Amino acid sequence: MIKTEQAIYTVIENGNITSPNGFQAGGVAIGLRKHNKLDMGWVYSEVPAAAAGVYTLNSFRAAPLLVTEESIQQEGKLQAIVVNSANANACTGEEGLANAYAMRKAFSDQLGIQVQHAAVASTGLIGVQLPMDKIMSGIHSISGEGKAEDFAQAILTTDTCTKQIAVSVEIDGVPITIGGAAKGSGMIHPNMATMLAFVTTDAVISAGVLENQLRKTTDKSYNMITVDGDTSTNDMVLVLANGKAGNKELNPSHPEWDKFCAAFQYVSQELAKKIARDGEGATKLVEVRVKQAQSSEEARKIGKSVVASSLVKAAVYGSDPNWGRIITAAGYSGAAFSPEKISVWLGDVLVVQEGTPALFDETEASEHLKQDNVVITIDLQEGTGEATAWGCDLSYDYVKINVSYRT
Amino acid sequence: MIKTEQAIYTVIENGNITSPNGFQAGGVAIGLRKHNKLDMGWVYSEVPAAAAGVYTLNSFRAAPLLVTEESIQQEGKLQAIVVNSANANACTGEEGLANAYAMRKAFSDQLGIQVQHAAVASTGLIGVQLPMDKIMSGIHSISGEGKAEDFAQAILTTDTCTKQIAVSVEIDGVPITIGGAAKGSGMIHPNMATMLAFVTTDAVISAGVLENQLRKTTDKSYNMITVDGDTSTNDMVLVLANGKAGNKELNPSHPEWDKFCAAFQYVSQELAKKIARDGEGATKLVEVRVKQAQSSEEARKIGKSVVASSLVKAAVYGSDPNWGRIITAAGYSGAAFSPEKISVWLGDVLVVQEGTPALFDETEASEHLKQDNVVITIDLQEGTGEATAWGCDLSYDYVKINVSYRT
Repeated sequence: MIKTEQAIYTVIENGNITSPNGFQAGGVAIGLRKHNKLDMGWVYSEVPAAAAGVYTLNSFRAAPLLVTEESIQQEGKLQAIVVNSANANACTGEEGLANAYAMRKAFSDQLGIQVQHAAVASTGLIGVQLPMDKIMSGIHSISGEGKAEDFAQAILTTDTCTKQIAVSVEIDGVPITIGGAAKGSGMIHPNMATMLAFVTTDAVISAGVLENQLRKTTDKSYNMITVDGDTSTNDMVLVLANGKAGNKELNPSHPEWDKFCAAFQYVSQELAKKIARDGEGATKLVEVRVKQAQSSEEARKIGKSVVASSLVKAAVYGSDPNWGRIITAAGYSGAAFSPEKISVWLGDVLVVQEGTPALFDETEASEHLKQDNVVITIDLQEGTGEATAWGCDLSYDYVKINVSYRT
Repeated sequence: MIKTEQAIYTVIENGNITSPNGFQAGGVAIGLRKHNKLDMGWVYSEVPAAAAGVYTLNSFRAAPLLVTEESIQQEGKLQAIVVNSANANACTGEEGLANAYAMRKAFSDQLGIQVQHAAVASTGLIGVQLPMDKIMSGIHSISGEGKAEDFAQAILTTDTCTKQIAVSVEIDGVPITIGGAAKGSGMIHPNMATMLAFVTTDAVISAGVLENQLRKTTDKSYNMITVDGDTSTNDMVLVLANGKAGNKELNPSHPEWDKFCAAFQYVSQELAKKIARDGEGATKLVEVRVKQAQSSEEARKIGKSVVASSLVKAAVYGSDPNWGRIITAAGYSGAAFSPEKISVWLGDVLVVQEGTPALFDETEASEHLKQDNVVITIDLQEGTGEATAWGCDLSYDYVKINVSYRT
């Protein structure tokens, strides 16, 4: 166990989506990805769990999102999720929708659960029908026993590593655990990008309260990351709370509600940061902290604009303290602020002081940009709005990966 | 002379900013750029000309923009423009503003014109004070005689070629000429990017009518191009009309107003396309035509979103007919449309038919993407809104140019 500074929650070493009580997960290879890689993952809860989801804002919503949303809307419960990689089942019309329904039905039959308690998710290439023979035989091979690591592997596409985390927080004197796994490395942008995140918890909480908190949390985590500005058709975050921990039901009136929210926020932010750090071709995680903006909304606009700028990203890749690009990106963000009051730091190095260049040590600034975690801080001296956005640098490899992804 | 299809206007072979009557232009090397490149350009009209400008929407507006806007606001007239490259005089505070005023004063004195009839423009690195000794001795070397080609060269930064054009149109039985020169290759995005464009004409037209038409034209030309999504601090388009052609004053009531607008639009669009084609690292011009949108505004949103997508741009670079990325970018544009009605063509090859994949010849589609001019057409079947956006592909060289621009 690693104690965090505040000791509100503890991060579980090698924690994952099955760290909370009563969850199983696994992955199988069904022949969708090359080299016999794992490409179908599943999560199962011993009992139906309160469930909530948030979905892409792209006008094109992939078939599995429609089917999963329908499942949650029926009773606010999910008991299992099946995910395939390599094929997004997006822009596949009526046939694609029928396939997503068939996938859900076969999966719920296989696990012996009610069909409205099953969710489906897909990620990968757009516009190609799912090979249903492989999907079906894959589902029929799911036994209900497996490894969380295999689940985390099976949901990947161009990702270079798995993204897993779990934390523990004591509420009502009992330990509550929140775990998660995510994927995503390209087409990542605020407002839900090509990313999937699955979070489990054994907390007792209603679906409605969970959904409400999920939306708030998403705005400070998944919606604050960008890799390339593209928002995908398949983005989805699902949260399952199976109540196995036995705490008193959580809601904003619960005396320890803030502790739960902090732990939930931490899990979501860490998954989001892992996605940003694994951006296609990325060599560094870039964190942009915006302070004293007129409002949180204005702070978010500036943070997202800076972290999404190709010119800022390329400068970070080259460890070039080109602060002109940072304030330029702040300037076109659409947020209102006074240019003559802005200050900017690269790490601890002040590079812009109240709108004009600061005298700074180029080498020191460049050294900070060579770190794995680059922090850009922007202070606007306008108000109390704050936000943090995460992204990555822009390297030759981003281009290399994306010129030939499909062919 | 090359006749256009409609023969409304004729494109002048090797036409430039001095093609209209009564304009001179030139360029000198004053030591701001390496290798003794030309780095200060000037345009001069024999008489004060009706003038209009549009400026960047970035919150950070560089000092020369403030000074030039002040000049135009005084009488609606300009007689000469001086431009330096290599240094943007942006984010340079009070000292930078004083330098821009000093530059204007020295230039107007040198040419013997009124100070409020002089405009200044700068492009290049942000946050460094202008070397005023070089600027001043450069201005003092301007003789009022020179070559339009030198002007077009002197305003460049990372551009690989000059951008010049001129057309002729007959109005009231007399030939009217419109010429222009522009620069820009990085930080190019809708709403005025790091680009400068200067347009001259000998037409008789008032400053107010000219400004109104410049705004309309800009929305269909300079504001419809993108290279990397970054909008700079220094963007500016200036138009000077010196009235030497002797036509009856142009305004929307003039029987041949539409001819003038068409010619003006053509000059603006060609300059904008030349900028997009010369995007940093670009190997191809990408044109996105949006048809039958709910409105022109919705069509513009979609066109800009598709042409700005890093994933679409990388796919074009790789000649990969990855239409999934195109409709994904349309989907997150914020425009309202029905996904099941969208059709997409790459050149003449239909790749998406009413929301689902069309059967198409991969080789044929890929062949189109190997052309110098790639055309993506999107039909939404929603209404009568139309727009065209221009951009370029994303290559390794974009990254190469931008990791080390400053150092």
